[in-house]
Amino acid sequence: MTIAFSHFVGKTTMVSSSSSPTPISPPTPSVFLTQEELKRIAAFKAVEFVKSGMVLGLGTGSTAKFAVERIGELLQQGKLKNVVGIPTSKVTHEQAMSLGIPLSDLDSHPVIDLAIDGADEVDPHLNLVKGRGGSLLREKMIEGACRKFIVIVDESKLVPYLGGSLLAMPVEIVPFCWKFTTERLQILFEDSGCVAKLRTCEKNDEPFVTDNGNYIVNLYFEKEIGDLNAASDSILRLPGVVEHGMFLNMASIVIVAGELGVTMKEK
Amino acid sequence: MTIAFSHFVGKTTMVSSSSSPTPISPPTPSVFLTQEELKRIAAFKAVEFVKSGMVLGLGTGSTAKFAVERIGELLQQGKLKNVVGIPTSKVTHEQAMSLGIPLSDLDSHPVIDLAIDGADEVDPHLNLVKGRGGSLLREKMIEGACRKFIVIVDESKLVPYLGGSLLAMPVEIVPFCWKFTTERLQILFEDSGCVAKLRTCEKNDEPFVTDNGNYIVNLYFEKEIGDLNAASDSILRLPGVVEHGMFLNMASIVIVAGELGVTMKEK
Repeated sequence: MTIAFSHFVGKTTMVSSSSSPTPISPPTPSVFLTQEELKRIAAFKAVEFVKSGMVLGLGTGSTAKFAVERIGELLQQGKLKNVVGIPTSKVTHEQAMSLGIPLSDLDSHPVIDLAIDGADEVDPHLNLVKGRGGSLLREKMIEGACRKFIVIVDESKLVPYLGGSLLAMPVEIVPFCWKFTTERLQILFEDSGCVAKLRTCEKNDEPFVTDNGNYIVNLYFEKEIGDLNAASDSILRLPGVVEHGMFLNMASIVIVAGELGVTMKEK
Repeated sequence: MTIAFSHFVGKTTMVSSSSSPTPISPPTPSVFLTQEELKRIAAFKAVEFVKSGMVLGLGTGSTAKFAVERIGELLQQGKLKNVVGIPTSKVTHEQAMSLGIPLSDLDSHPVIDLAIDGADEVDPHLNLVKGRGGSLLREKMIEGACRKFIVIVDESKLVPYLGGSLLAMPVEIVPFCWKFTTERLQILFEDSGCVAKLRTCEKNDEPFVTDNGNYIVNLYFEKEIGDLNAASDSILRLPGVVEHGMFLNMASIVIVAGELGVTMKEK
């Protein structure tokens, strides 16, 4: 199901492109929205699903941070009450703390009403690649425990198939013999022209270390990897792998902000 | 295939029980061997497979330590040359270092000729439970990379099915929200009467921490868990799980030392 939310994006800021075959918003003077603005629009739309009293999974990354910001704002305004946030990373924990959002964890709240988070890729079946922000494991634990998982993206994240952006599909691995595990991951997907590379920090070229003390291997694919569930199991069966960034059959709703409006995709 | 190795165990120390229907050693006066002695016998037998020039996976635990000791001895005696050991734990690393065994790792030697290690349980299909020594992940990485994997046990480790000893089947998990993951593991196998408990240190009741900085959850089963491959995948699919202690279709040979002699089981 795809629903246009042109009412949400505002007449003055949202724009239809005259070259588009299916304009969703009414024609207005062209005002190009930045990617940041699109992310904010999707995030605000997602927060409309938040109700007082909910236990909320709080995502990580450049889009999710707008949702966390918005939840903090609504709490301060008294429009939301008694929510509990479960942050998916240390960074989000700090952001939420600074906004006065009451926080807890999965151990105390094993069932989450609603989680909101960004994604790096969304395929037509609403399968996701996540984790370029480095927090895929905690995200998967928390978002796998929620009743409803809303994904918020700008339209640049839509891909025909996972891996289709040609950007990284991250895999979290233990540091012990990481070269060996990296090599095995690359061999696993050699038919898809896979290149596996350890993620390093830009500033010093040291391995990037996750909140769990692990490393990340980025997989780049030349071609489709085929059956995603089979690929998932193959990766997880490699000893040394902790988790991967494919989130299959997890998203309940994907909110996409684009130049033509906000659309909501449900399975 | 089961081969009796009565020649190995020595006429003076090895004993047949008169109540046994199939005595393997010739009847001799009863001399009961301790479990430690049985472990040593199995370990020494396994080391007969070691040849000069091999890359060797060195196991961890009370049985494997005898094999490492024996390899060190043969090196010192000049009966073995140019072997390289790949230790499966920090403890084994230290033991092997102290014995002068040259050491390396999987990154430098991604293919291992032969690994020797103990096991906590061995089923009739030579599937194993390992990891009560706390080193299951490194063991699985290394023993999964070897051409031949010899398992050495005393006969108390033989079980009709995995979990059949009613002792722990360990699962390595990330510390983040370990209670949540423990609960999910227990629920996964509730049909088998599973009880999941965090492994703690005896001296201070703090969580036991693996060489990889993770925790161990011990699973105890009342009943068989059924299809082992399906159980393995179910465990690995839980985010928060790093690895489990079932070693399926990995053992090439199992050497069993018992009161009646040493037997060798091959698939």
